[in-house]
Amino acid sequence: MSDQKTDTQNAWLSPEDIAQVRNQVPIIYVDAVPVRVNPDGEVTHIGMLLRQAADGSISRMVVSGRVLLNERIRDALMRHLEKDLGPLALPRIPPEPAPFTVVEYFQDPSVSGFYDPRHHAVSLAYVVPVTGECQPSQQALDLAWFTPKEAVSDDVILDMTSGHDRLIRLALASVGQLP
Amino acid sequence: MSDQKTDTQNAWLSPEDIAQVRNQVPIIYVDAVPVRVNPDGEVTHIGMLLRQAADGSISRMVVSGRVLLNERIRDALMRHLEKDLGPLALPRIPPEPAPFTVVEYFQDPSVSGFYDPRHHAVSLAYVVPVTGECQPSQQALDLAWFTPKEAVSDDVILDMTSGHDRLIRLALASVGQLP
Amino acid sequence: MSDQKTDTQNAWLSPEDIAQVRNQVPIIYVDAVPVRVNPDGEVTHIGMLLRQAADGSISRMVVSGRVLLNERIRDALMRHLEKDLGPLALPRIPPEPAPFTVVEYFQDPSVSGFYDPRHHAVSLAYVVPVTGECQPSQQALDLAWFTPKEAVSDDVILDMTSGHDRLIRLALASVGQLP
Amino acid sequence: MSDQKTDTQNAWLSPEDIAQVRNQVPIIYVDAVPVRVNPDGEVTHIGMLLRQAADGSISRMVVSGRVLLNERIRDALMRHLEKDLGPLALPRIPPEPAPFTVVEYFQDPSVSGFYDPRHHAVSLAYVVPVTGECQPSQQALDLAWFTPKEAVSDDVILDMTSGHDRLIRLALASVGQLP
Repeated sequence: MSDQKTDTQNAWLSPEDIAQVRNQVPIIYVDAVPVRVNPDGEVTHIGMLLRQAADGSISRMVVSGRVLLNERIRDALMRHLEKDLGPLALPRIPPEPAPFTVVEYFQDPSVSGFYDPRHHAVSLAYVVPVTGECQPSQQALDLAWFTPKEAVSDDVILDMTSGHDRLIRLALASVGQLP
Repeated sequence: MSDQKTDTQNAWLSPEDIAQVRNQVPIIYVDAVPVRVNPDGEVTHIGMLLRQAADGSISRMVVSGRVLLNERIRDALMRHLEKDLGPLALPRIPPEPAPFTVVEYFQDPSVSGFYDPRHHAVSLAYVVPVTGECQPSQQALDLAWFTPKEAVSDDVILDMTSGHDRLIRLALASVGQLP
Repeated sequence: MSDQKTDTQNAWLSPEDIAQVRNQVPIIYVDAVPVRVNPDGEVTHIGMLLRQAADGSISRMVVSGRVLLNERIRDALMRHLEKDLGPLALPRIPPEPAPFTVVEYFQDPSVSGFYDPRHHAVSLAYVVPVTGECQPSQQALDLAWFTPKEAVSDDVILDMTSGHDRLIRLALASVGQLP
Repeated sequence: MSDQKTDTQNAWLSPEDIAQVRNQVPIIYVDAVPVRVNPDGEVTHIGMLLRQAADGSISRMVVSGRVLLNERIRDALMRHLEKDLGPLALPRIPPEPAPFTVVEYFQDPSVSGFYDPRHHAVSLAYVVPVTGECQPSQQALDLAWFTPKEAVSDDVILDMTSGHDRLIRLALASVGQLP
């Protein structure tokens, strides 16, 4: 494991390198939708960060980030969840390796409806129950929890860009809580 | 909720009634595969009860039982997990309503390979992480935890009947841990 | 196979018998959402029948029906698809046994939002591409095909009851086409 | 669509470029497991190519390849299936965007059990029914079809490397046909 961590640290790229790679291959991401569940396992709330999105807008977003070279999907999920929700969030990474959906972000918004002006990214999306205290990092202005009904309301959707409102609906559908 | 519980209690059937129903419709079951997960969410062990199977043999089995009239799938899962693993097992019912597989038990073993001499049952199968102390009920002789490799070994498979060894492999595959 | 068919034919129940069984156990159903796919495998249209729903209303509905004693899920899906869409619909039953969701219909609409006044039913829901000519049976007044956008529009939703509009959204989400 | 194709053609990289990218980010792949299904939708056979694997050995393998910049997952699947199985294979790309599993190939075989000496690749794995005539390309020595039982037999497993035998078992499990 220590070797692997060393490898992963070498995986950070300079801005020039990442700019070049983005012109060559799609980038692998993970999207983690933080949720609160009740004792029966039902999703009662969805957590969304308020932060600057890839398109520059201040948007409601889920936890999202790149998978590094030699990093396992599970480790990438845990790293991004801890970075965005703080070290006490206690996320429960699901045991299944299969994501509930695959989101393809293109620089051309018309291809899939999911948009990222920086690059073509393929994102594996997971619903992740968190049970601890969440303290959003300094990169986020706010973390708020929404019921399924609130999360798909016009008010909240207006604060989302790049197809993130659709991602929320897909996540809610996967847990049977799409209103 | 209190009304629902009353309804569910009325759902218990006399031996005569259950015998008659079995000749008329397939019976809905849930199969819960208890697992231990590590902090990364990976399945490290599978729990199996040693108990009398439907075919009369003493077998290694997962948690399994009928869904009652007016009972939600989630409540049936929780009820059978608590009954078989004790009140301190702290099962985490998954948020997704879709099972990882559907097991069709027939009285004719040749139809699907899953066999129940009592009836035709359709079982929704879930992998359920348990985090607490497990105390198998008096109906079970033992509860033991096996690594994925042990769980698919010839020794353990010999103790399983009615297709339960296949169910274990399907469960391990769904969490990416099939050896 | 001939034996199995004989068994299944014996599985038809008299109105008195089905009335009694409904008071004793949940009934297993399948819901099949017929879709048209393009050569890339993307869902372009959803088919909905106009027929009398369980609640007595004339509603837009998907293919739905009971699983008989000793009948495999696959055979129940094929039987109901042929009955409702005609013998030339050429449905492609998915290879996976796991449904995209499990719909729990209760006589009390407040339990799950899915409602059936006749009984408690647990329905395994599948998206089924159909490639042939569909001729709805005499029980249906009409079969119409809707784009994903049309299928979730207010106009179409108004013609659905018992939670079927939600089932359509869950089906579209499972194929990544929820608008 | 024509614009997209142009973009994708620009996505081919020189050997030097691909070597450099491999040292910077994980590469996105698709794995397609070709299957034959019977009229009920059940998988009866799995197709495997005999070809040079990434580790240099002549191995039994499924269809596998890179996702190009600005290429949709669906288009990558279709492109690799046509390239490896010929233009008349008539693959049916599944409507669901979610893969049945995610395979993480590392240069260190001990991390996940899936191994690629060239790079860290994250592969989205799909079961793809093919209904037409398959003519393996010149890169493959042979294409053979195996029943589920044959596909997991010791004889066939001996011809697989890099974890591909495990991928076959995971694919069979996802369609309920793991022996």
